[in-house]
Amino acid sequence: FCRIVEGTIPADIVYQDADVTAFRDISPQAPTHILIVPNRHIASLEAVTTDDVAVLGKLFLVAQQLAESFNLNTHGYRVVVNTGRAAGQSVYHLHMHLLGGRSMHWPPG
Amino acid sequence: FCRIVEGTIPADIVYQDADVTAFRDISPQAPTHILIVPNRHIASLEAVTTDDVAVLGKLFLVAQQLAESFNLNTHGYRVVVNTGRAAGQSVYHLHMHLLGGRSMHWPPG
Repeated sequence: FCRIVEGTIPADIVYQDADVTAFRDISPQAPTHILIVPNRHIASLEAVTTDDVAVLGKLFLVAQQLAESFNLNTHGYRVVVNTGRAAGQSVYHLHMHLLGGRSMHWPPG
Repeated sequence: FCRIVEGTIPADIVYQDADVTAFRDISPQAPTHILIVPNRHIASLEAVTTDDVAVLGKLFLVAQQLAESFNLNTHGYRVVVNTGRAAGQSVYHLHMHLLGGRSMHWPPG
């Protein structure tokens, strides 16, 4: 995902600022499915330190703003972060999934 | 959940500091299923402002530490935040679900 952040790999980017980039998941699991990543490389939640707290909090703020832009508030929305392969983490650049546009079921996978 | 934070309603609290409280979900969906909440009342992600970024980031840090304490790293773990009733939010005090101890499936609900 670093190369998506840099712009050297194309992606459907829906938001970008100095700290965070958001783009559509290429294998969407809901009508709206966006990945929100810190621009700085953090492999996973296991690698997070206190220095990362601000950018991690900002992922939620961007999720909220995207949810509003994409009208996800009607149905509600779910954010998910997977850590480790068995939990479903397939790319080792920390990413928050934002899913909305349909009812979400329980348990969450 | 404010009353759990205050201690006036009993819960199986597994972590607490000045900003964050974590306790076991009473309806667990995985061998380990913990809720991590900001002590300060925030109804949902829809209510979040820039002032909340630090405490929201800290939820991830506490999730990481609890994952280590509860040996969730072997299987990996998933964190989930629901916003709105159709997404599965049943209590209007923002909470992060931490699930681990089994393989997690995709889509996430």
